[in-house]
Amino acid sequence: MLAAWIDGVRGESVSLSDRALHYGDGAFTTIRVRAQQGCWIDAHLQRLQQSCVGLCLPKPDFAQLRTEIEDAARVESAGVVKVLLSRGDGARGYAPQGAPGRRMVFAYASPELDASTYAQGLQLRYADLVLSQQPALAGYKHANRLEQIMARAEWDDPTIADALLCDVDGRVVSATSANVFARFGNELRTPSLVRAGVAGICRQHVLQSPPPGFSVTVTDMHRDALGTADELFLSNCVRGIVPVRALGDHGYASMSVARSLMRALHPALGLPVY
Amino acid sequence: MLAAWIDGVRGESVSLSDRALHYGDGAFTTIRVRAQQGCWIDAHLQRLQQSCVGLCLPKPDFAQLRTEIEDAARVESAGVVKVLLSRGDGARGYAPQGAPGRRMVFAYASPELDASTYAQGLQLRYADLVLSQQPALAGYKHANRLEQIMARAEWDDPTIADALLCDVDGRVVSATSANVFARFGNELRTPSLVRAGVAGICRQHVLQSPPPGFSVTVTDMHRDALGTADELFLSNCVRGIVPVRALGDHGYASMSVARSLMRALHPALGLPVY
Repeated sequence: MLAAWIDGVRGESVSLSDRALHYGDGAFTTIRVRAQQGCWIDAHLQRLQQSCVGLCLPKPDFAQLRTEIEDAARVESAGVVKVLLSRGDGARGYAPQGAPGRRMVFAYASPELDASTYAQGLQLRYADLVLSQQPALAGYKHANRLEQIMARAEWDDPTIADALLCDVDGRVVSATSANVFARFGNELRTPSLVRAGVAGICRQHVLQSPPPGFSVTVTDMHRDALGTADELFLSNCVRGIVPVRALGDHGYASMSVARSLMRALHPALGLPVY
Repeated sequence: MLAAWIDGVRGESVSLSDRALHYGDGAFTTIRVRAQQGCWIDAHLQRLQQSCVGLCLPKPDFAQLRTEIEDAARVESAGVVKVLLSRGDGARGYAPQGAPGRRMVFAYASPELDASTYAQGLQLRYADLVLSQQPALAGYKHANRLEQIMARAEWDDPTIADALLCDVDGRVVSATSANVFARFGNELRTPSLVRAGVAGICRQHVLQSPPPGFSVTVTDMHRDALGTADELFLSNCVRGIVPVRALGDHGYASMSVARSLMRALHPALGLPVY
């Protein structure tokens, strides 16, 4: 961590009564920094706002939060700004009524991005963990992430970049920290997130602007269907568009749409195009 | 909060890199204090140990933790000691590997306990929120508690003490912060927690020692079945055994087993018997 602010004040620690600490009672977003500026800040703020509504979290002053994100992005070497909105202090009992809210803004260095991952695609696996279905939380980037942590704990082979998570009915939901798209001919498909998963900002960009000549559909997608896809790629605000070379033993030869989306989206994210 | 210790050191705040803060990446337990001593400490430590195994959390030194719990229980006016074991620092990315663990011990005053609740029973409602099914997390008192928070946010009528949570198949799981038992004649039944819920220490005591003449069964229990129960009560380590007067509009006249269990368990918890 390069720097952090709590309700606008620089700090390194947070109250032991914070409800995010005790219960994961909060929501967050992770913003890529390009040339000392946060990328897609409007969309990130809007999603935080939706999370506040959906989780009944106290709403921060979003104008002030924007300024804080901009300040954090100007920290030397910052590559990522994370915002964590917690319900604030009040850690005895689940009743959320009256908690004042707390906004935390963090500046981090960018994670290492391996050129070969973009050029040749990454290796995925299926997670053994089966995602639960919880429509009341689905879509939000809330701070209850034990399922993703448990799934990510299943392997430590560094050649495997991420895992695909499915629900109990075998529907694909997402990777542990990215959304997933599959291409079938001229159609892109990405899982519906009404039961589980996080509606990513980068996914939103793909949904709004598929490459010319391609349609994009939000749909239920059974894991068996991925075997017949022509191409697979992940989307994430920090890593951008990442092609998938193989899912388990099944290889994907094409990366054409992923490359096209890299050309369209990566310049705004300060990410290289391969 | 009366006092808190982080890894044995008194403090009021915790590192902003703690994974419990960012992801709810931890487990906890809440211990009743009687005469400056923690009640049922062995069982609480054993459950924390099980949580560490189940969630792949780093194991603390449990002998040291026991000493810290005992110290916290001796704080003036302490009524509850909470232990929160987080995975420790490392808040960029879900991968849990290598996080060092962090133990937090808190002394709190006892919550107010209303004599009439024990004497006449409490009013329950059904939560609108439907609990998700996640066998990988079920049973553990982990720090991902947004479902319970959302359920508890559904009402603020102070005459309603708690809500019963069911899963998508209509099976009763628990109250938001207590386990539930139903009596049918001479048989006590409590929900199986293999898909959702927290295996409470007080529940364990009831399972191990039902009142003479009664059997106790862990079973799937559909919400419709509660309409035909003779008696309903909740169990919780801080509040003990609490009879249920009514669930929604449906009243329960009998509190006989709840009273019998109060007599058996409350003295050890320093709780009154009604």
